[in-house]
Amino acid sequence: MAASPASNGSVSGSGDVRPLFCQIYCRLKSELLEDPAFDFTDDAREWIEKMLDYNVPGGKLNRGLSVVDSYKLLKEGKELSEEELFLSCVLGWCIEWLQAYFLVLDDIMDNSHTRRGQPCWFRIPKVGLIAANDGIILRNHIPRMLQRHFKGKPYYVDLLDLFNEVEFQTACGQMLDLITTHEGETDLSKYKLPVYKRIVQYKTAYYSFYLPVACALLMSGENLDQFVDVKNILIEMGTYFQVQDDYLDCFGDPKFIGKIGTDIEDFKCSWLVVQAMERASESEKKILYENYGKNDPACVAKVKAIYNDLDLQKVFTDYENASYTQLISSIEAQPSQAVQAVL
Amino acid sequence: MAASPASNGSVSGSGDVRPLFCQIYCRLKSELLEDPAFDFTDDAREWIEKMLDYNVPGGKLNRGLSVVDSYKLLKEGKELSEEELFLSCVLGWCIEWLQAYFLVLDDIMDNSHTRRGQPCWFRIPKVGLIAANDGIILRNHIPRMLQRHFKGKPYYVDLLDLFNEVEFQTACGQMLDLITTHEGETDLSKYKLPVYKRIVQYKTAYYSFYLPVACALLMSGENLDQFVDVKNILIEMGTYFQVQDDYLDCFGDPKFIGKIGTDIEDFKCSWLVVQAMERASESEKKILYENYGKNDPACVAKVKAIYNDLDLQKVFTDYENASYTQLISSIEAQPSQAVQAVL
Repeated sequence: MAASPASNGSVSGSGDVRPLFCQIYCRLKSELLEDPAFDFTDDAREWIEKMLDYNVPGGKLNRGLSVVDSYKLLKEGKELSEEELFLSCVLGWCIEWLQAYFLVLDDIMDNSHTRRGQPCWFRIPKVGLIAANDGIILRNHIPRMLQRHFKGKPYYVDLLDLFNEVEFQTACGQMLDLITTHEGETDLSKYKLPVYKRIVQYKTAYYSFYLPVACALLMSGENLDQFVDVKNILIEMGTYFQVQDDYLDCFGDPKFIGKIGTDIEDFKCSWLVVQAMERASESEKKILYENYGKNDPACVAKVKAIYNDLDLQKVFTDYENASYTQLISSIEAQPSQAVQAVL
Repeated sequence: MAASPASNGSVSGSGDVRPLFCQIYCRLKSELLEDPAFDFTDDAREWIEKMLDYNVPGGKLNRGLSVVDSYKLLKEGKELSEEELFLSCVLGWCIEWLQAYFLVLDDIMDNSHTRRGQPCWFRIPKVGLIAANDGIILRNHIPRMLQRHFKGKPYYVDLLDLFNEVEFQTACGQMLDLITTHEGETDLSKYKLPVYKRIVQYKTAYYSFYLPVACALLMSGENLDQFVDVKNILIEMGTYFQVQDDYLDCFGDPKFIGKIGTDIEDFKCSWLVVQAMERASESEKKILYENYGKNDPACVAKVKAIYNDLDLQKVFTDYENASYTQLISSIEAQPSQAVQAVL
């Protein structure tokens, strides 16, 4: 499986594209700062430029680069024209802008402190809650970029529909996460596997896994209605990676994953707590109820002890093996070699 | 001039449409709660329904009704088919949804307390900052409604472009307002007439005045590029009404305007303080500097005393008369009688 925001440019070729991709960020930014739909003051232009540089390009860029990689694979080795390369990068950046918009607003809602190794945007003293509007502006930049570079293409309206639908699904997933966590705080038994899967599917998988491939398919002139199987495989892949993420949050080496996990402290509806609640005895459940979501190392240790007693490491390995096998067979069932390569 | 969010259904016919318009809200809500793009849980459905009922239909609905009124006038007395009436109401509700989205987020950013006579949505205890995501969902409902009811119409893509552009302009206006207020707090002399006009134009006039008429024009099969004059007139009208609003915030009767103005306390870049700074002597400026933006009745009284000394009532009357005359002559210069009637 190649399509992966969690991987580090695993698809051959993405290493070459990165410098060009980053150049195109600068071009897109300049265009947005001269957008004739708004009469910029110098202050406004300066604000937007800082806001973009702070929030858009600092991630791993895997979602964005994956549009270019997928498009190349769909072209089955034929050289991309300069325009095709450029346009696939623009769509890649649209996804990075979408991601930046979600992160800026999520950090406000979660009252987070750091993001990508720096303070969250709303934590910058002179920014504060203006960050909410900056998030909105990030979101609004996407149709500006699409209009400038794709209006007139036969798939322009499909791109607009796609971004609208995926953003809607992500916002619904975020809502589900927020209300589930709210209810989970009074009753941990609300954290069940179908709820977990639904949150991951909508909140993460659509925009991180499906959207980049769907963009590449539209650029290739395909009709997305014919790729429902591909969509389902990508959603499953997104779930697979999120389960891994949840597992590593607790059991991963902080040196390797680059952060210290706090899902237990934060009362997250993590795959681990869902599995634990499914397997725990009444006395273990009581301990989970009393210690989950507390910002106290002793409580965290008690939760982790139960995870160990229930052998969730093995549950995880079994789950991942089963998912992997199933995904591979779904991918191999795909009629097109090019599509198989994308997945 | 008929097009007016500030008026109470001044266009003949809107009185009759209101009950139907409100019925259509219920239908649109039901459709959104059964949207196949998201797999609703009962909790999620309940949350969205409460959120919509709390935030969408409680305003004066002038923006929304104005789409229907404008469309009727563009049809020059021809009876609207049931479908036309329905579709114009859907577009009207899209604008009301847009307004709800802006208000929910603005209230968070401004740390407001009440809205439309009830606590702001984010003030509801179990809502809190989930309100930010609810705002996003309100915004995402618009393309859902447009797709369901307009996909396939020749003007579908123009509707998407229009809503995208107007939302972008509004977000830019809000940014300008936020950063200007930030700078104004340290230096009141930043509040100047061109800055004021730019904020009003982008933050309010586009979505409140231009958008309803532009929706009606698109439904009538018109090309918006041919209506630049109409756009400019509507933007001027928006400014005219905002100046009136700012004036009444200070000099209006609270019984009549339905609220107690707090622009002075809130350090707003109001038309009045802009005019006062333009006319004040050095000693008067000093008093404004020291007392504007303070939540203290004694300070507010000192600011109002300067407004009176500078005879801003007369400045206002002169301004409004001049604007009105100019607007009427621009409207009369419009070649189409139907378009004149809309304005």
